[in-house]
Amino acid sequence: MAGSSATLGQRHAQLRAALRQRGAAALLVSTPNNIRYLTNHAGSSGALVVTADTMHLLVDFRYEEAVRQLQETAAACPSLQMWPVPASYDEAVVACVLEVGLNDVAFEGQHVSVARFDWLRRAFEARGATVALSPTQGLVEAGRAIKDAAEVALLREAGRRLGGVVEAAFGAIAAGRTEREVAGTIEAALRAAGYERTAFDTIVASGPHSALPHHRAGGRQLGRGELVVLDFGGVLDGYCCDLTRTVAVGDPGPERRRIHDAVREAQQAAIEAIRPGIMTSAVDAAARDVLVRHDLGEAFGHGTGHGLGLDVHEEPRLTRPRADVPPVPLEPGMVFTIEPGAYVPGLGGVRIEDDILVTDTGYEVLTSAPRELLTF
Amino acid sequence: MAGSSATLGQRHAQLRAALRQRGAAALLVSTPNNIRYLTNHAGSSGALVVTADTMHLLVDFRYEEAVRQLQETAAACPSLQMWPVPASYDEAVVACVLEVGLNDVAFEGQHVSVARFDWLRRAFEARGATVALSPTQGLVEAGRAIKDAAEVALLREAGRRLGGVVEAAFGAIAAGRTEREVAGTIEAALRAAGYERTAFDTIVASGPHSALPHHRAGGRQLGRGELVVLDFGGVLDGYCCDLTRTVAVGDPGPERRRIHDAVREAQQAAIEAIRPGIMTSAVDAAARDVLVRHDLGEAFGHGTGHGLGLDVHEEPRLTRPRADVPPVPLEPGMVFTIEPGAYVPGLGGVRIEDDILVTDTGYEVLTSAPRELLTF
Repeated sequence: MAGSSATLGQRHAQLRAALRQRGAAALLVSTPNNIRYLTNHAGSSGALVVTADTMHLLVDFRYEEAVRQLQETAAACPSLQMWPVPASYDEAVVACVLEVGLNDVAFEGQHVSVARFDWLRRAFEARGATVALSPTQGLVEAGRAIKDAAEVALLREAGRRLGGVVEAAFGAIAAGRTEREVAGTIEAALRAAGYERTAFDTIVASGPHSALPHHRAGGRQLGRGELVVLDFGGVLDGYCCDLTRTVAVGDPGPERRRIHDAVREAQQAAIEAIRPGIMTSAVDAAARDVLVRHDLGEAFGHGTGHGLGLDVHEEPRLTRPRADVPPVPLEPGMVFTIEPGAYVPGLGGVRIEDDILVTDTGYEVLTSAPRELLTF
Repeated sequence: MAGSSATLGQRHAQLRAALRQRGAAALLVSTPNNIRYLTNHAGSSGALVVTADTMHLLVDFRYEEAVRQLQETAAACPSLQMWPVPASYDEAVVACVLEVGLNDVAFEGQHVSVARFDWLRRAFEARGATVALSPTQGLVEAGRAIKDAAEVALLREAGRRLGGVVEAAFGAIAAGRTEREVAGTIEAALRAAGYERTAFDTIVASGPHSALPHHRAGGRQLGRGELVVLDFGGVLDGYCCDLTRTVAVGDPGPERRRIHDAVREAQQAAIEAIRPGIMTSAVDAAARDVLVRHDLGEAFGHGTGHGLGLDVHEEPRLTRPRADVPPVPLEPGMVFTIEPGAYVPGLGGVRIEDDILVTDTGYEVLTSAPRELLTF
């Protein structure tokens, strides 16, 4: 379990401090993984109203028994009050807010739709209640971006177990195999390693498909001389890991080797740049500069990495500076991927990805597998 | 491929008619599966601006090559114009709307967050542009709820292939096996049957876990006399199927058999109620009345079914009448699950689920597997 009761208490204290700073009496949390982070309850739906002294958790019939069982363990959520949801979550939120007597509720502006906001606003009006609803951004995510000890332990273990899965993946590479067969081997190995599910759809991209950064896995057979991008991950107690290697089926020839060498050099440069205080954009630039120097700048169209945790894509994002993704300084406890790539139509693509923890003095690589170009 | 160019053209014509009726010049579509339904492009991000004569598809670097390849097939999207997204999707949407010269854009109110709406509004203001943004609800979903011939063919095939997976699942049931091992067998069988991925996390819920409607699969060993709920599905060319059977490990005794008999009777009653024109709530009531008659009304806390298509939960919802889920009449071409259940803490739970197509005169069951209580 990711968080003991004490760990949850620390997360609550941090969130409540942020709420006080905003002058908000309560926060409506509506994303499942933010609810899970704060309560240990993992459901596909739910709503949580955080006040100064209580975690009001609204769950429907499907989850009531699971929450009751959770509350009898060492991972029980402190100061939890469960509110059964008879039908609609939104109606239950309105009832809870009115019954608790809140007249000022912050909500997650990035996760509440325009339609839902309008419905809530009108529902309070219809009941003659004056409840100020104010959007916030990233209050819970700010806590989630810096992993606590319980989370680091899980992410470290999730990364460690990928080692055996990589070996199984390599063992499945052979000319004539289909991408889907290789993906099947990888997913069976993920399950055998104890992950509860895949973190995302496994990618096995061979030959021309390797030049498509988000190809998944299809009926195509691996051919001799081709590159194959293998990108996969598992979820362990809710926490995601994510690894990519690019291998060759027989000799891929000098041009494809050159691309692989450049991407490997770019990944190494980005990893070595990691330390507390450096900006996310500077880590991205460390990888990008190497690829530009190898005339592969245009071939690297995505960011260098993304945070890992309960979501497989979360904060921080390691990209070029963008209006919607402002650079942030790295802090100890951040966990993210470093995954530069280069995609050249006609030749193929290469991506190499590992998971990294920022430490007090530098970094720790959580995943382990050969990075040189292996041929099978 | 789910839709030929001609099929996509019909979907576009229907959507444009709905837009004209609202007096809207354009619709910003932001959900990946709505974009896929209208363009055949399957990406995890994207934006689509539908105007009277053009489908403006905004995609980032990762998908440009895939869209170019798609447009050279028989499933090419008619009147498509691709807009590369250099960095932020929202910035690219603003640039597209201004360049096309739109001053009135409807958007999907249920899918655009308050924060994103505010950003778009301010971005147009900052550029001195007067662009009216108006929320809509369910415009694309209304089309998606009634499957066209291409979709019915895929859903029928997706349902048919589950037959072999059910057999593999049954073969894995034995006292001492863990839930996770059984789930592994099911997922390997799903992949062997040609599904590109699981439609959702496979559920294997044994003994006390069977009373938790959304337990997934853990390390618990199946014990003699217990019920085991098996709930799984696959995705075939984007389309989801979903099936549940409840089995017993050895003799479960008379009480658990009684629950199974009642749920089976409830499912049969709901299926036999299906025909064009009947309300979703009446189908739900057909199942619910049976369970109430067997004193299991309180034990059936969820709805009777949900639509299936590109999403594993979509329109229509077959539930009791609710403010947020108003009943609708069934129409030919709707595809949904029928899955009543009863969950009794201390005894266990039962759920039985099949996928159904509404035909011109009644229904067609798309999934096939024994419904009686099998013991292993």
